[in-house]
Amino acid sequence: MTTRAELTEKIVAHKTFNDIKWSDVAAAVGQSKEWTTAALMGQISLSKEQAYAAGNALGLNFSDEEIALLMTVPYRGSLPTAVPTDPLIYRLYEVVNVYGTTMKALIEEEFGDGIMSAIDFTMDISRKADPKGDRVTIVLDGKFLPYKMY
Amino acid sequence: MTTRAELTEKIVAHKTFNDIKWSDVAAAVGQSKEWTTAALMGQISLSKEQAYAAGNALGLNFSDEEIALLMTVPYRGSLPTAVPTDPLIYRLYEVVNVYGTTMKALIEEEFGDGIMSAIDFTMDISRKADPKGDRVTIVLDGKFLPYKMY
Amino acid sequence: MTTRAELTEKIVAHKTFNDIKWSDVAAAVGQSKEWTTAALMGQISLSKEQAYAAGNALGLNFSDEEIALLMTVPYRGSLPTAVPTDPLIYRLYEVVNVYGTTMKALIEEEFGDGIMSAIDFTMDISRKADPKGDRVTIVLDGKFLPYKMY
Amino acid sequence: MTTRAELTEKIVAHKTFNDIKWSDVAAAVGQSKEWTTAALMGQISLSKEQAYAAGNALGLNFSDEEIALLMTVPYRGSLPTAVPTDPLIYRLYEVVNVYGTTMKALIEEEFGDGIMSAIDFTMDISRKADPKGDRVTIVLDGKFLPYKMY
Amino acid sequence: MTTRAELTEKIVAHKTFNDIKWSDVAAAVGQSKEWTTAALMGQISLSKEQAYAAGNALGLNFSDEEIALLMTVPYRGSLPTAVPTDPLIYRLYEVVNVYGTTMKALIEEEFGDGIMSAIDFTMDISRKADPKGDRVTIVLDGKFLPYKMY
Amino acid sequence: MTTRAELTEKIVAHKTFNDIKWSDVAAAVGQSKEWTTAALMGQISLSKEQAYAAGNALGLNFSDEEIALLMTVPYRGSLPTAVPTDPLIYRLYEVVNVYGTTMKALIEEEFGDGIMSAIDFTMDISRKADPKGDRVTIVLDGKFLPYKMY
Amino acid sequence: MTTRAELTEKIVAHKTFNDIKWSDVAAAVGQSKEWTTAALMGQISLSKEQAYAAGNALGLNFSDEEIALLMTVPYRGSLPTAVPTDPLIYRLYEVVNVYGTTMKALIEEEFGDGIMSAIDFTMDISRKADPKGDRVTIVLDGKFLPYKMY
Amino acid sequence: MTTRAELTEKIVAHKTFNDIKWSDVAAAVGQSKEWTTAALMGQISLSKEQAYAAGNALGLNFSDEEIALLMTVPYRGSLPTAVPTDPLIYRLYEVVNVYGTTMKALIEEEFGDGIMSAIDFTMDISRKADPKGDRVTIVLDGKFLPYKMY
Amino acid sequence: MTTRAELTEKIVAHKTFNDIKWSDVAAAVGQSKEWTTAALMGQISLSKEQAYAAGNALGLNFSDEEIALLMTVPYRGSLPTAVPTDPLIYRLYEVVNVYGTTMKALIEEEFGDGIMSAIDFTMDISRKADPKGDRVTIVLDGKFLPYKMY
Amino acid sequence: MTTRAELTEKIVAHKTFNDIKWSDVAAAVGQSKEWTTAALMGQISLSKEQAYAAGNALGLNFSDEEIALLMTVPYRGSLPTAVPTDPLIYRLYEVVNVYGTTMKALIEEEFGDGIMSAIDFTMDISRKADPKGDRVTIVLDGKFLPYKMY
Repeated sequence: MTTRAELTEKIVAHKTFNDIKWSDVAAAVGQSKEWTTAALMGQISLSKEQAYAAGNALGLNFSDEEIALLMTVPYRGSLPTAVPTDPLIYRLYEVVNVYGTTMKALIEEEFGDGIMSAIDFTMDISRKADPKGDRVTIVLDGKFLPYKMY
Repeated sequence: MTTRAELTEKIVAHKTFNDIKWSDVAAAVGQSKEWTTAALMGQISLSKEQAYAAGNALGLNFSDEEIALLMTVPYRGSLPTAVPTDPLIYRLYEVVNVYGTTMKALIEEEFGDGIMSAIDFTMDISRKADPKGDRVTIVLDGKFLPYKMY
Repeated sequence: MTTRAELTEKIVAHKTFNDIKWSDVAAAVGQSKEWTTAALMGQISLSKEQAYAAGNALGLNFSDEEIALLMTVPYRGSLPTAVPTDPLIYRLYEVVNVYGTTMKALIEEEFGDGIMSAIDFTMDISRKADPKGDRVTIVLDGKFLPYKMY
Repeated sequence: MTTRAELTEKIVAHKTFNDIKWSDVAAAVGQSKEWTTAALMGQISLSKEQAYAAGNALGLNFSDEEIALLMTVPYRGSLPTAVPTDPLIYRLYEVVNVYGTTMKALIEEEFGDGIMSAIDFTMDISRKADPKGDRVTIVLDGKFLPYKMY
Repeated sequence: MTTRAELTEKIVAHKTFNDIKWSDVAAAVGQSKEWTTAALMGQISLSKEQAYAAGNALGLNFSDEEIALLMTVPYRGSLPTAVPTDPLIYRLYEVVNVYGTTMKALIEEEFGDGIMSAIDFTMDISRKADPKGDRVTIVLDGKFLPYKMY
Repeated sequence: MTTRAELTEKIVAHKTFNDIKWSDVAAAVGQSKEWTTAALMGQISLSKEQAYAAGNALGLNFSDEEIALLMTVPYRGSLPTAVPTDPLIYRLYEVVNVYGTTMKALIEEEFGDGIMSAIDFTMDISRKADPKGDRVTIVLDGKFLPYKMY
Repeated sequence: MTTRAELTEKIVAHKTFNDIKWSDVAAAVGQSKEWTTAALMGQISLSKEQAYAAGNALGLNFSDEEIALLMTVPYRGSLPTAVPTDPLIYRLYEVVNVYGTTMKALIEEEFGDGIMSAIDFTMDISRKADPKGDRVTIVLDGKFLPYKMY
Repeated sequence: MTTRAELTEKIVAHKTFNDIKWSDVAAAVGQSKEWTTAALMGQISLSKEQAYAAGNALGLNFSDEEIALLMTVPYRGSLPTAVPTDPLIYRLYEVVNVYGTTMKALIEEEFGDGIMSAIDFTMDISRKADPKGDRVTIVLDGKFLPYKMY
Repeated sequence: MTTRAELTEKIVAHKTFNDIKWSDVAAAVGQSKEWTTAALMGQISLSKEQAYAAGNALGLNFSDEEIALLMTVPYRGSLPTAVPTDPLIYRLYEVVNVYGTTMKALIEEEFGDGIMSAIDFTMDISRKADPKGDRVTIVLDGKFLPYKMY
Repeated sequence: MTTRAELTEKIVAHKTFNDIKWSDVAAAVGQSKEWTTAALMGQISLSKEQAYAAGNALGLNFSDEEIALLMTVPYRGSLPTAVPTDPLIYRLYEVVNVYGTTMKALIEEEFGDGIMSAIDFTMDISRKADPKGDRVTIVLDGKFLPYKMY
């Protein structure tokens, strides 16, 4: 039996070897590159049509079993350990660890007590040219959800 | 002896009771509200002048010992546990946990192998009006650092 | 050799691909949808008859080995980590983490020292229509068990 | 300096010794017994007026420092360990651990991919008379939040 | 402010120095030596009368604050770490770790699916004379609670 | 290659499907049901003769490799996590966690400083009829071992 | 209130500053240097006479509270973390981690299934002169305890 | 592909079934029984000659792949968890946990600041006859390494 | 499907059995021995050309699947546990654990607040002859990155 | 009672406020700046003379109790968590985590099986000018210790 993790590995290795772009797969699926990559990394479920479209764009002929895996809502969580060891992902964790209480203080001062949703949420990753070295810009955009009184 | 954690608590309680804004303290210190809040939350060191300026803006008359604490480069890390329990901060952790491998895939496709710096880094937190409910926008902006061959 | 976890994955993928409802399987098994889903997710043992009935309703022709797995009382626990990473399940964990001492205080004030049983226990999950967005209602219902003096 | 945890302990000990009811404090604060208890257990911030009202209902004359603590949005999380050791609270954790994937399966079948909010959320704890032994009924009620496509 | 842990330490040190027996305190409290010791070790709450009786038997004149602590239902859990380091207590943990699945297999074969209650539960600790060296006999006695079908 | 864990699973599934009793296997092996079950759960080594006898009683024709596994002294420990998630086994852990310091206090008062052996140790699990619901009785019986002075 | 850990620190600092030898304290107490040091490090309880004798030998005039602490059977475990960070103690942990299964294999081959007692146990630490650099010799000597059949 | 852990299991099962002694394998390899056992348990690398000699002594005809595994310097560490669950090995861990600070105190008093090497290190395991029950004697012998000033 | 970890094992076993040198592989790849070894240990991605060159130098004829694995940017982190158990690697961890705050203090005094990059980073490992025993010299060389004000 | 950690904090705050250099303290103590800083950070013991000299250089008049603390061999380990949260120190941990198996492979190829000592060890931290941004150079230098055969 194939697991979702093995399917992800297969997709990534195939993509690397054949130099396919996530944005091309996303165009075929009809969603953003962020959403589509997350789905193929095993964190979002695809509809049957989206799953077949992704397979075509990748040049992979998914079996029924693989389509079923892509359609199943995954048990989310992409990291093998609570604190990530990969340096790129660790830097994001570090931002949360070091500046978490700062973000909390500023969001609560602006909005009152509540949270930024991670569900009604989009993200956008882009390159910002800079003469001192190009920069990564990550925009996290989530609905503010206030705590209820009752 | 006062610890940095106790000083943070004192600053926050005083600010809450007297309804002082982080942006007003930031103006006095001469840095952004994000930088200043992080400094007063114990994650960045202030110069002696910045420390006194912050004390004045808060209406707190810092002792020498408190100024020394604010001047010391802190052992960074604002969370009591590796996985944060506070819901607002957890949502940020969840974004990293669920979408970490996605961000890694997209940054590496765009820039090659490397990371987004969490040091040559700024963040900006703002409110975005939305008829379906205002949104929190967090912009993370860090220099791309490529892995070296050697 | 098949493991219980692999059998669960097989059932879920098959169910997703063929769009079968838990409530239909439950009707065939003769128990509630909550009990039946938990059993097929590997947390409750089925009798031999229930296991065959579930197989028929799913359109899966279970082998003797698979029937034996479904009949075995499982080593319970459905989560791969102590703190769940899946956002839906994490929200339930968060409720326990944030409001745990509150529930303890209110149950003990009402009933005296004791617990709510998680064994003599039922749960019911339903949808509540709401113009501002439908709501999930989860009712947990367990016998109060007082601590004994002796 | 008093910490929020010490203030909670003081409130609870005082309440126990003088046999005060959470519902009486809640009536004075003007919120439900669940919300009010959670606030006094250090998981929700009170307004200045609510903090004074709670103090009067308890017969405690809170100092300015204590009022400031009650007004501060807390770093939420009421448990000293990720897996709770207290038997009453552990049973709730056990329900999440054993039935978490079941709840996920049933909510997703009914609503599609998304979560039950733990922020736009209320809970209600009550006693249900039963000749075989009274039962605890906990109703968790949260808005369904669908994952966005984008 | 005194904590429950400090009060426990005070009781134990006083008992050791003055060579008082738990069974004598238990007689004054009117419960078994097991129940009374657990209460004074901070794992069970005493009534106001029991708390005063224990104080008299120990020759300690408890303050109102101490009585309130003894009356409060504790956040149970007597061990500083999930795996105990004390050799006597570790041996008990080892029995659970090594023979846990054995006990599960035998209880489920005899009673069907369910658990032994740790709430409707008594324990008895006694000495059994043996020419090869006296033995400790611990009898754990809990009501069997079957899992419900529903 | 078969592992000991896989062999255990095979034995348990076979026993469940064919409704064999541990006590019947124990009679064939010539030891108590507690000892025999623990051995077949992978916590005690069997002699070659005992291993063949168990195989016959179970109706399993063990291969040489399986006999070798049953003969090997195992790396003991039957739980996949330090804190067990299975409710039946957790209740036993809870008894140790909540009452561990109590048992320590009572054993040391009776015997002096030392431990109850978990090696020179037997356990007995039985059913005790009770009109309010039958009870599980677990008797733990271990030699007292005093700490040496030297 | 003094804790046992604080008393240990006081003893060690006093001993260091005044250059007192553990063996001299041991002679006064009437036990070996290993036993006496362990007792003063908070891992073994002293009798009232031994506690006073140790105080005299150290030139510390213990208070009644301190004597009571030294007389109380400690909750054993001398390390702040499960894996020790101190290099000297880590090397001992490393020996157990790297050679643990080796020691198990050799003891079981020689003695059959069982353990080396850590209770009926003595240790001896000495210096062995060696031209290539003196060596530390640690002799661990514990009774073999065979597992029982029953 | 075979892993080192699987090869270890194969060696141990074969040795058990055929009742081969570690000391006989050691004689063939030309090292002590402690060193040889550790090597075959996967903690030390063998030379090509030693690997073939061990295979002959065991009556196992190692493949090239198996010889390569035995020749590779292993990633050392023989325990599946930081705190061992096997009772025999746990007792050794317990000695380090309970007496670790004692050993540190005595070694530092005798030698000054430094450690006992776990590399320039030998161990010897033997049986000591004793009328009250034979004893296990473990001698750990390591070079003292002083901390450098510089 | 092959995993990256299995490929690493295959490379290492092959290299050991055939006594190939990392520096020879590095020469073929055209990078330093440190960079090349890290790449083949699964911590750096190779270009398609580098992957084929490494295969030739090793005498391994990599399949397309293996080349794809070597080309994929890995999820970095080479250790199975957060605290390494292998003695050689543990010593490096120990240096960080014991001297981490020292390095922080000295770097910050020299450069101001910031870090040493682990990305714009090279390392060099060499042997230094010494009559008292040759020494390992590890040079870590990373760009200083100052924290930004903003 | 002062703890070693509090004394460290006092020294660092005093040094920061008064802008004293570690190298000046080191000159007074007569050791390198690395050794002296580590000692004052609580990781190495000072002689009585060195402790007084450090106090004079810092302009702190240490009490007897403080001198005793500085003279005591510390329980080493400078980090509050096994994985450091401070970014500067984390980068060092990351180097060990990512390149640990690489360093092991290269050291073992060069020297044979063994380790780099962390005791017979020195480190040197310096600034290397670089037009693209100055670099931190950390040289770790430790004696190679071969594993013994025996």
